[in-house]
This record gives sequence, C-alpha cells and structure tokens, in this order.
Amino acid sequence: MFKFDCQARCPETQARVGVFHTPHGIIETPRFMPVGTLANVKTVTPAQLATTGAQMILANTYHLHLQPGEEIIAAAGGLHRFMGWSGPILTDSGGFQVFSLSQMRAISDAGVLFKSPKDGQEIFMSPEIAMEIQGQLGADVIMAFDECPPYPATREQVQAATERTIRWLYRCHQAHYHRPNSPLSHPQALFGIIQGGVYLDLRRACAAEMVKLDLPGYAIGGVSVGEPPELIAGVVAATTPLLPEDKPRYLMGVGTYREMAQAIAAGIDLFDCVIPTRLARHGSALVQGERWNLKNARFKTDFTPLDETCTCYACQNFSRAYLSHLIRAQEVLGFTLLAIHNLTELIRFTQRIRTAILAGTFTSEFASWLKPQESA
Amino acid sequence: MFKFDCQARCPETQARVGVFHTPHGIIETPRFMPVGTLANVKTVTPAQLATTGAQMILANTYHLHLQPGEEIIAAAGGLHRFMGWSGPILTDSGGFQVFSLSQMRAISDAGVLFKSPKDGQEIFMSPEIAMEIQGQLGADVIMAFDECPPYPATREQVQAATERTIRWLYRCHQAHYHRPNSPLSHPQALFGIIQGGVYLDLRRACAAEMVKLDLPGYAIGGVSVGEPPELIAGVVAATTPLLPEDKPRYLMGVGTYREMAQAIAAGIDLFDCVIPTRLARHGSALVQGERWNLKNARFKTDFTPLDETCTCYACQNFSRAYLSHLIRAQEVLGFTLLAIHNLTELIRFTQRIRTAILAGTFTSEFASWLKPQESA
Repeated sequence: MFKFDCQARCPETQARVGVFHTPHGIIETPRFMPVGTLANVKTVTPAQLATTGAQMILANTYHLHLQPGEEIIAAAGGLHRFMGWSGPILTDSGGFQVFSLSQMRAISDAGVLFKSPKDGQEIFMSPEIAMEIQGQLGADVIMAFDECPPYPATREQVQAATERTIRWLYRCHQAHYHRPNSPLSHPQALFGIIQGGVYLDLRRACAAEMVKLDLPGYAIGGVSVGEPPELIAGVVAATTPLLPEDKPRYLMGVGTYREMAQAIAAGIDLFDCVIPTRLARHGSALVQGERWNLKNARFKTDFTPLDETCTCYACQNFSRAYLSHLIRAQEVLGFTLLAIHNLTELIRFTQRIRTAILAGTFTSEFASWLKPQESA
Repeated sequence: MFKFDCQARCPETQARVGVFHTPHGIIETPRFMPVGTLANVKTVTPAQLATTGAQMILANTYHLHLQPGEEIIAAAGGLHRFMGWSGPILTDSGGFQVFSLSQMRAISDAGVLFKSPKDGQEIFMSPEIAMEIQGQLGADVIMAFDECPPYPATREQVQAATERTIRWLYRCHQAHYHRPNSPLSHPQALFGIIQGGVYLDLRRACAAEMVKLDLPGYAIGGVSVGEPPELIAGVVAATTPLLPEDKPRYLMGVGTYREMAQAIAAGIDLFDCVIPTRLARHGSALVQGERWNLKNARFKTDFTPLDETCTCYACQNFSRAYLSHLIRAQEVLGFTLLAIHNLTELIRFTQRIRTAILAGTFTSEFASWLKPQESA
C-alpha cells in the first residue's frame, strides 16, 4: 500500500521526482506539507487547504494526546474523519515537542516523564506509548519516537541521544508491526527519524543503522533547532547517500525557500514547517521568494493583488490594500487569506522545482537558491 | 433602480413577502443581513458568506472612517470591490456608534465632536459628512445620520433626539440628492432612521414626518439598546402602519428568533445583528432556536453534526466533538465554522418565515415564536 516511485533524477544533483503512494492518496514529490498541529491547519478550512495544492498534511501526537486525547479521535473514526481531511496525513511522534515544549521530569531508556503544559499533570511517553497513540490517531504515516538533542550540544550528548533514538526505533518497530488487532481499516507506515545533530559521522552512523530495518520511509530530524541554516544542507548531504533510493525522505521542520531548494538538491522529497501559517498570523506574506510585512505603509493604497501571477483565493479576489487593512485591524480574515496564500506559495515552490527537475532545468532555474549564501 | 415589490401578505398579521431591487442584486424579504463592520464579516470569507444565503450585508461608516478611511475605499473602487462582495451592501451612518462607542466632546445641531477610540484624535461628524463618507464608500443603501438616545432616557431627552434626527434627515436628504458629480457608477438609496425610544407617540410622530420625504426605505433605530426585548414588538407595531407599503422596512440591530418573528408579523422586512458572528467567537452555536455552548462536556464525544438538517459547510463536514475540540483549543477555525453555521441558521430562519407567509402557514408554523414570552 505504501510505495515510492522515483520518476526522474536530476543529472547534476541528487534531486529526484517521485510519487509516494499511501492509503489516502498520492504525494507528488518534492512537496511541502502544511502543519495542522491540533487537527487543523490554523485559520484554514480543509476546503480552503485543498485549493493550496496540499496533498499530505501533518498533525502532532504530542498536542493531540494532551487535547482532545487520542481516544476521542479514535472514537470519531480517526484523524481523517475527525478533521475532515480525506488526503494523506502524517503524525509526528511527539519526540520533538516533548523535548522542546515540556518541563522534563525524568529521561531514561524507558521513556520520558514530563509535565503537561496544559494542566501540569505528569505524563509518561515512551516508544510503545507513542506507537499506541499514533495507532489510535490513524494517520497514514507515523513517526518513530526519538530524542531530539538541542543546539548547541556536545558530541557526547548528541551521541547518547542518537543511540537512544536508535534503540527506541527498534522498540517502535516492534510495537507497531506486532500490534494486536489494529482497529484501523488501513495500514500505517512507520518512518524512522535520523538524529546526530551537526556531527556528520553520527548522522551517517545513525542512518546506516536505521536502514537495516528496511522502513517504508526515513526522516532527518533535529535540524532547524537553532543551528545556522547553512549547516542544514551539509547534514542532509551527509545522510541521504546512505538512504535507500526507493523510499521517501523527509526533512523535518524545514520550510524556507533556500533550505528546501538545497535539501532537494541533496535528495530530500518531503518538508513540513509552521512558517507559512505562523507568518500569516504575524501579518507577513511570502511573495516570490520574499517576505513582506503587510503593515508596511506602502501597501495601504496598493490596489494590486499580493502576487499577480498567483492563482490562490486571496490573490484572485483581494488587493494588498485590503489585506493590509485587515491585518492592521487585526481581523482574523486577514490571517486566513495570508495563510491560504503562503501555503499556496510554498507548495508551488516545491512543485516548480519538481517541474524543473523533470525538464532538466533545476540547477539553472533555481541557481540563485542553490548558492550557499544570500538572505531570503 | 431601487424598487420594492410586495409579493404576498399574511392574512392574519402585517407580515409580507417582498423583493427589494438594488444595483448589486435583489434581497428576498424578510431576510437577515450579516454585519461586516470593518469591511469583512468577521472570520468568514466572501465565498463562505455566499454559501450562508446572505444577500445584502452591512458595513459601518463609523468604523471605516476611522480605519482604513473612506478615501482608501473610494480609491479601491468602492466597498464592493475593496471587500470582494459583489452583492448588495448597506452602510450604517455611524450615528449609533458615535453615540454608543465614543467619548463625546460636544453635540449640537451642527453635528457631533467625538474622540476617536483608536488614537484619541478629535473627529467631527455631521449629516453632511456622513453622506459624504457613505458616498465615498459606495454602498447600495446608505443610512441617514441620526441621534440615537440611550435607554433609559426621559421623554424630553428622547423627544429632543428625535426632533434632531428629523432635522438631520432633511439635511442628509439635501446633501445626498444634491451631491455634485458622484464618482459612483450606481445610485445609492437613502433610508431614514425612525427614533422615539419606547415612547410610541414619538415613534408615530417621527415616522409621520419622515414619510413626507418619500424615501426609498425606512429603518426603525434605537431599539435593542438595553430596553426589555418585549418592548420592541410594540415599538414596531406602532410604527409600521405609518410607513408606505411599497418601501422596505428595516429593524436595526435585531437578530434573535423571537424578536425577528414578531417584527416580521408587524411588517418588518430586513434585520441585521452581530449576534451570529459574536456568538461564534464565544463558542456558541444557534441550533434550531436554541443556543448551545460548544464547551459543554456533552459535546466532547458527540460525533453527530451540529444540526443534522443543516446544509452549511460546518454541519456537512464536521462533528460537534470536532467543533468542541476547536473551541476548547481556541482555534480560529472553530470560530469560522460556527460563524458560517450561525449565519446560515439565522438567514434560514427568515427564509423559512418567508416560505411560510407564501404558504399561508406563518402564524401556525411560527406560533411558539409569535407568543409574547418564553426564553430563547
């Protein structure tokens, strides 16, 4: 049921074009995936989301475990039915959030004891529990429970976290593929998360170990956690050569133009990031590679669309002046319209790269993004 | 261009069915009109709004004058183009808001000097200025600038405000119909606003005076300002017999089931109220005549639609449990979905009354709403 067809390769880079098949539909890669943390992509309806070009979307195990709880989502018939999204869904394992958002009580090989930021309650999370929760949520792709070290961290710290992540992956694999009587009507693909921080030999060792499990997909985690963005491409380039050609590769938490273009050149297929919806809530638009603050005075009387070439609902129906007015007045509709545009823009960016790889023009057309420097 | 065709009358009440023609389309009356204070119906896109059954919508002169300013909207080509609503629009004059929301500096026959709640700037508003601003905004229907007395107020206070409102209406009429070179491509209909508080003889005197101007429509203002709701029906019943049969009648600021049903029975055609969108932002749904708080524990595991008989986007795609989750998590999407439902529900309520009047079943079918008491 899960299959990754590689359809074309870039002759000059590791970039590739593929189709990832899941029980709820295909994902044409490379592709950006919108984040729907709490079983909704913030300020956007599923009908609006479908118009942005979204195929697979994310939800978060950590957040949904705290609120409303996986039992309620399972009783609703799973995440797809609960949130009204009939396309593919991926759930993050909660590992990243447990380590970045929670007050930690105790970490051991057994798992992590942390304090719920919602009500202070003590919660225990382990590989087995993360698999159990994700089984209840019922996404198409589920992620292994990992320990995500912070940046900066010593080599010893990162090595310990990476080794634990590998041990935990084996337990996730065991728990997931030997779960008795799943209530789901469809299988779930377990992706491993490669850790190793900015230590490339640790990344390589982690990847080499994980591929032994012949998983249906692999993710690179522990990037975009505070390190200089120019380090990301090196981490990716060190890791992807060790990954199987016939499985999708997902770079977690990355969603800027330059980092996506460079990661695609290094062989990545999937991305997620909260940036398009978060920027929208701060009144910013992504327009052809730039970030614009709609509160800027120049937009007050600019009656042209945000992006004249864009086919999204916001650009087809409203002016920069109107969006600026809504943002200045803090009207929620402004956040919704910018979110629709920003999602459309980032997904289109990955689609355009896809088209360019197929046409053999990736490195020429995206040359400015593939260069190491310059701001975006 | 403005025409009100009365198509049917209820044999037992003053209720009527009509079609009001405007430059941007028709309004089938009786009908509820959504409020789009700051050139948007809060949390709802125009495309979503169109699915609720909305025909004419409102915007507010007072708010738009403060932000973004009528010059910007005029430069955009008027409100319809600015906010992306191609159907009929009505702008309130600002009278109600000046008297209810502002810190007053001086009131005289000349006009009102008040302090902008936005930046403390002193602003002067007069009948002539209100007409000028509404001319720039370019709605189909514009409202006369009125003095809206509070409740309670003495007979003397209300009488003075009513007499001033009449004098101001004459000045609005003069200013509007003798404006040199309107930049608009369509005419605007000026409605008068009948004041008089709960003093029925003042209401009658005001109405009798205003109809002399043979305006294209009349509104009853100064209700729903704190008086007991059961007084509204009496005010309406005292006023409508004095109004011409061939002009639309609009009861301002009223949008509850009982008050609308009773006002329709007294001959009202149009309503507006912020209640459906405001309730949505507080997590409440209007369901078949009741108000439900989606935070109520009983909805957490209720996987049925909000209203199984409702055709709105929220009811067709989501469960009470999902809406409850979004509201509990304070996700904006929850407000959007409830707003879509609440607008659909209130507009449908007025549409159902319309159908019942045509079928001759209004008083029997809506008997429970036409009785004076009971809560809703």
